[in-house]
Amino acid sequence: MQTENKPNFASDYLEGAHPAILQRLAETNTEQTSGYGTDEHCERARNLIRKAADCPNAAVHFLVGGTQTNAAVIDAFLRPYEGVIAADTGHIAVHEAGAIEAGGHKVLTLAGEAGKLSAETLKRYLHDFYADENRAHAVQPGMVYISQPTECGTLYSKKELSDITALCREYALAFYIDGARLAYALSSPKNDVTLSDLAAVSDAFYIGGTKCGALFGEAIVIPDKNRLPHFITTIKQHGALLAKGRLLGIQFETLFEDDLYFRIGSNAIRAADKIRSFLDTHGFRQYFASPTNQIFIVLKNEDYALLSEKIGLSFWEKADEAHTVARIATSWATTDEQVERLLKALSEHSPCGKS
Amino acid sequence: MQTENKPNFASDYLEGAHPAILQRLAETNTEQTSGYGTDEHCERARNLIRKAADCPNAAVHFLVGGTQTNAAVIDAFLRPYEGVIAADTGHIAVHEAGAIEAGGHKVLTLAGEAGKLSAETLKRYLHDFYADENRAHAVQPGMVYISQPTECGTLYSKKELSDITALCREYALAFYIDGARLAYALSSPKNDVTLSDLAAVSDAFYIGGTKCGALFGEAIVIPDKNRLPHFITTIKQHGALLAKGRLLGIQFETLFEDDLYFRIGSNAIRAADKIRSFLDTHGFRQYFASPTNQIFIVLKNEDYALLSEKIGLSFWEKADEAHTVARIATSWATTDEQVERLLKALSEHSPCGKS
Amino acid sequence: MQTENKPNFASDYLEGAHPAILQRLAETNTEQTSGYGTDEHCERARNLIRKAADCPNAAVHFLVGGTQTNAAVIDAFLRPYEGVIAADTGHIAVHEAGAIEAGGHKVLTLAGEAGKLSAETLKRYLHDFYADENRAHAVQPGMVYISQPTECGTLYSKKELSDITALCREYALAFYIDGARLAYALSSPKNDVTLSDLAAVSDAFYIGGTKCGALFGEAIVIPDKNRLPHFITTIKQHGALLAKGRLLGIQFETLFEDDLYFRIGSNAIRAADKIRSFLDTHGFRQYFASPTNQIFIVLKNEDYALLSEKIGLSFWEKADEAHTVARIATSWATTDEQVERLLKALSEHSPCGKS
Amino acid sequence: MQTENKPNFASDYLEGAHPAILQRLAETNTEQTSGYGTDEHCERARNLIRKAADCPNAAVHFLVGGTQTNAAVIDAFLRPYEGVIAADTGHIAVHEAGAIEAGGHKVLTLAGEAGKLSAETLKRYLHDFYADENRAHAVQPGMVYISQPTECGTLYSKKELSDITALCREYALAFYIDGARLAYALSSPKNDVTLSDLAAVSDAFYIGGTKCGALFGEAIVIPDKNRLPHFITTIKQHGALLAKGRLLGIQFETLFEDDLYFRIGSNAIRAADKIRSFLDTHGFRQYFASPTNQIFIVLKNEDYALLSEKIGLSFWEKADEAHTVARIATSWATTDEQVERLLKALSEHSPCGKS
Repeated sequence: MQTENKPNFASDYLEGAHPAILQRLAETNTEQTSGYGTDEHCERARNLIRKAADCPNAAVHFLVGGTQTNAAVIDAFLRPYEGVIAADTGHIAVHEAGAIEAGGHKVLTLAGEAGKLSAETLKRYLHDFYADENRAHAVQPGMVYISQPTECGTLYSKKELSDITALCREYALAFYIDGARLAYALSSPKNDVTLSDLAAVSDAFYIGGTKCGALFGEAIVIPDKNRLPHFITTIKQHGALLAKGRLLGIQFETLFEDDLYFRIGSNAIRAADKIRSFLDTHGFRQYFASPTNQIFIVLKNEDYALLSEKIGLSFWEKADEAHTVARIATSWATTDEQVERLLKALSEHSPCGKS
Repeated sequence: MQTENKPNFASDYLEGAHPAILQRLAETNTEQTSGYGTDEHCERARNLIRKAADCPNAAVHFLVGGTQTNAAVIDAFLRPYEGVIAADTGHIAVHEAGAIEAGGHKVLTLAGEAGKLSAETLKRYLHDFYADENRAHAVQPGMVYISQPTECGTLYSKKELSDITALCREYALAFYIDGARLAYALSSPKNDVTLSDLAAVSDAFYIGGTKCGALFGEAIVIPDKNRLPHFITTIKQHGALLAKGRLLGIQFETLFEDDLYFRIGSNAIRAADKIRSFLDTHGFRQYFASPTNQIFIVLKNEDYALLSEKIGLSFWEKADEAHTVARIATSWATTDEQVERLLKALSEHSPCGKS
Repeated sequence: MQTENKPNFASDYLEGAHPAILQRLAETNTEQTSGYGTDEHCERARNLIRKAADCPNAAVHFLVGGTQTNAAVIDAFLRPYEGVIAADTGHIAVHEAGAIEAGGHKVLTLAGEAGKLSAETLKRYLHDFYADENRAHAVQPGMVYISQPTECGTLYSKKELSDITALCREYALAFYIDGARLAYALSSPKNDVTLSDLAAVSDAFYIGGTKCGALFGEAIVIPDKNRLPHFITTIKQHGALLAKGRLLGIQFETLFEDDLYFRIGSNAIRAADKIRSFLDTHGFRQYFASPTNQIFIVLKNEDYALLSEKIGLSFWEKADEAHTVARIATSWATTDEQVERLLKALSEHSPCGKS
Repeated sequence: MQTENKPNFASDYLEGAHPAILQRLAETNTEQTSGYGTDEHCERARNLIRKAADCPNAAVHFLVGGTQTNAAVIDAFLRPYEGVIAADTGHIAVHEAGAIEAGGHKVLTLAGEAGKLSAETLKRYLHDFYADENRAHAVQPGMVYISQPTECGTLYSKKELSDITALCREYALAFYIDGARLAYALSSPKNDVTLSDLAAVSDAFYIGGTKCGALFGEAIVIPDKNRLPHFITTIKQHGALLAKGRLLGIQFETLFEDDLYFRIGSNAIRAADKIRSFLDTHGFRQYFASPTNQIFIVLKNEDYALLSEKIGLSFWEKADEAHTVARIATSWATTDEQVERLLKALSEHSPCGKS
């Protein structure tokens, strides 16, 4: 339900779209274009992304949402006897209603730390798997899936990604990076991973639009354009080929002209950093050390209830019987006034103490 | 590729959206709403549709595109051992890249006539199937799928639909109607089937937005709201649950206020009727007797080539070695000027003769 | 139900197994062997088959039944966006309860003639498919499936197979041959296709055991052993990896020592030829010109009913309102006495006339 | 590979079948019967099982192996949006090569204890699931799967099963019990769960043949015969409908006449108890407290290597860097002489100490 009368930090997809996108949609509305991504807007957007990620030979495809993107990419890379490795908090493992399994593939979950899958954990799993005499009776690992930033708002460093890449190459696994909130990674001062790095370390990644200022849309980048033959047919089979593909082209054109995508990220990070600074100063406990647009705070259950009356928050999980983890998400649309109202509301609740 | 310098009749989804929709999206852009269709715009759109179709107990769900809609609905109704019956020209049988089979279900095709599946054909199939001693080794029929209007632009009458419904009830089959272009059926003077009739005869149907003036979007109507438990999870599993569900709610709100959906259809039909009148007068052969927004004309191959230089047309199929069937589609966006230019271009080509 | 008091020609899998197989199972019963096909009997059977088919580098896998064999092989060869081409009478298209679709793949049916898919039909389909601008929205052809002998008892000649192979290579399609009744092809005097030829023309074929004298079992031959990596895991995933794999090894060892497989075929063909000769002499109409162990006769409905009281027959289909097509199948187990009783029963019914 | 020169305790499916089964197959070999389980042997076996489990209205189906049985049953019970709950050691979660996911369903693993899923663990999961506001975006629980005995040889008590049943009924979950080694549960002196109890507490269970004296075969019991309409078609679609179904009927007829199934279990338990007694006396550590035919001993790595030269054992897992868990399985076929040789070999290795 709508929550107009209080600032809402429940997620980063509460509003429509960045105004520049709406304006461009209006300007191009009467153009007649061919469908399914064959139009000139899509072509231009593809080139802007290839340039931004410094991968001129990449295939770039535009889909509407994250779950369909993950399902289509994973389906396209894996053979039927293969599964996809993910952290146990990975979006595909938890919140996609079994979309990967519906495509016939097991999600092989490994224990993550604050949402991150470490190269060591991965290495141990792979070592054990290939040491198992009965492994032919088990799902074969075929891909590693991670999110940047993770579902917990944390970031992989360039070194951490390279270590995973090395393992993937050693074991012939595809490496796929879910960038649903990528703008908020790219704009974080703690981040050392560029679009170009993502193209260098992975077999595929996607640049999220839905949660980063677009009405909707995700741009899949496959650095080696020959890697997935007939991917269009796979996309269509997944019901994920938008008839008016231009809508995606126009949006990503807008996002990647004039660095709008990065400016969108910066606004969210500036707001989040301001909130984090306040939390640190006032002794609030943060559940994950996130440097991006998501902040996870631990509140007494009663404080969580009271705060929720003033501010839209997202329930994350119970920290223990008496405490709740709440998520605060900033976005391209977060205003200074909203942040002030949040900080004011927070200041009315005693912190539960640093961990 | 774009074809800006000539009028384009290649399809009915060449432009963006009806201006009223864009305007509403702009007006609501800064509202903060909850996601996944739980917002007030969706709720209001659902009620408008329930009222328009006179089915107050219907469940109404909004999805982005036709293929994902068909796949999700069929998956939700069928059991694993069941298949869906369709005319051999049915969209699910031909142009959805195997989306239904990817969900594990066979499309059981029967011979259609100008895109229509007749009750007699269906009855004969069902009789033979249940007379077959080995039927336990075959896919069990579980649903009948038709399109209104059909892929050939033709219409089922109310009587024809009722006859199919009677068979479906006799054989315990679900009956599902694909309304990708429903506005163009509802506005055709030859049509005698209302939204309310569709709700009465079927177990589910969808009201197409993508091809009828929306940016995108299809509204599934399930007259008995308890028929498909957990359908939201099925939609999510299909990657078809739009995060910013409000975008669909806002569009269908706009379409079903002030009868916009019907006015959109009327514009297309008026243009198509004008073209059909010209074709009849000038001796052009129409491949199907379509009373909706799609017109299929038979042209000599060389005429087809020449005409295509002046007007955007869609190749349908070869009528024979020397003749091509071309599709002309009008839409909510078709202007008088575009029609005039089409007729002028047509008049420069001698007709291939009435059939 | 059992039909002990009358000779039964309803199918070729009415009895247990050739006595030599039962004897070998008894002799080896107390051996302790490793499971899942890793035992010495399987290894020996693989080598016997490699030798018989003159393909020393083949991978050979043993599965229990035909449907699971077809599903596993097709699943292993195809990518998700691909379908398998078959004649409309193909077993996978009709009598496998949608097993191929359950694996996510469409069966692309083409019109066959007496069960055979011709190279011309295939060529036309492929030509048209690749000429279609919208083919990216359709299931991509990935494999050709045929049966030798066909479900109608007919045979492909070596030339016919080579023509299909040429098309498959031109269009990069896998070519797979279902040999559920292969013994009855190999032993037919009209046959010019050897096991070695099958290995040369196809990417995979299977040697049927269930219908050819084994208790159960089908031997998949993949001439290029590197073609299907991790195929064991695919077999396991399909629930088709027999724990006591030795049972399959022992049976195929027995079948391919001393040419037992060919002798089994010969017995069935000799019996079928005797029946065919009688039918020709007495003016019975045969529905398909089958030179193998299946005979399809057209009978007046009342004659079919009367004959069925004396002889076990299989209903095939209605030829027209007044006539029934019945199938007579001989096998390794058919005795002279059974044939005599069949001919006696047939002679009591006036033929319906040659076609 | 075969291991003829040393006693093999690596599994319980190393030999062919109990001699009574082979004899019956030989005696019935020339009978002509109809296929796919419609013969009189299957009908008689079904009735014997209905009587043994005291469930006269049960549907009973015979399949070849465990993986296909699990996949078919789970597929038949679940809706596409549902998953199956299992202990993390459950066979379907680990050793079936993703067969359940290939059918589109997630295996929802919960932490087990020595292979057992407790009602408390289940209750906590279900409570948390239904308390989660975002549960519509997650796979819905639809079934509980357990094994009796478990993969670790442990047993559920009647009380433990009833507690799970109560939760299943409360949450509308199907309850399915995998009885691959059921004979060894039924014959254990520690067991208080009868076949009749299994029929009372579950929605389906299967009586394992492959690991309990049959050549192959598992008998699915569905206490309410109307629960799974068209299950034969589901079985066929899974490639799991044996053409010569009689082979399964004959085997289960033999197993359930004269209590052969129970005598088979008793032999294995007697041998296992003798080994356990020796292990206890000599200070060997058992990894799980199994009262059935599987024994898990912890050995120093070097002792494991030496012992493996004399006795066939199965590697289970590493207990730690220095110790290996080995599995000893007895069966219907285990002889006193084999046990003596095992004990002699064990006595030559110092135990690693009780835990």
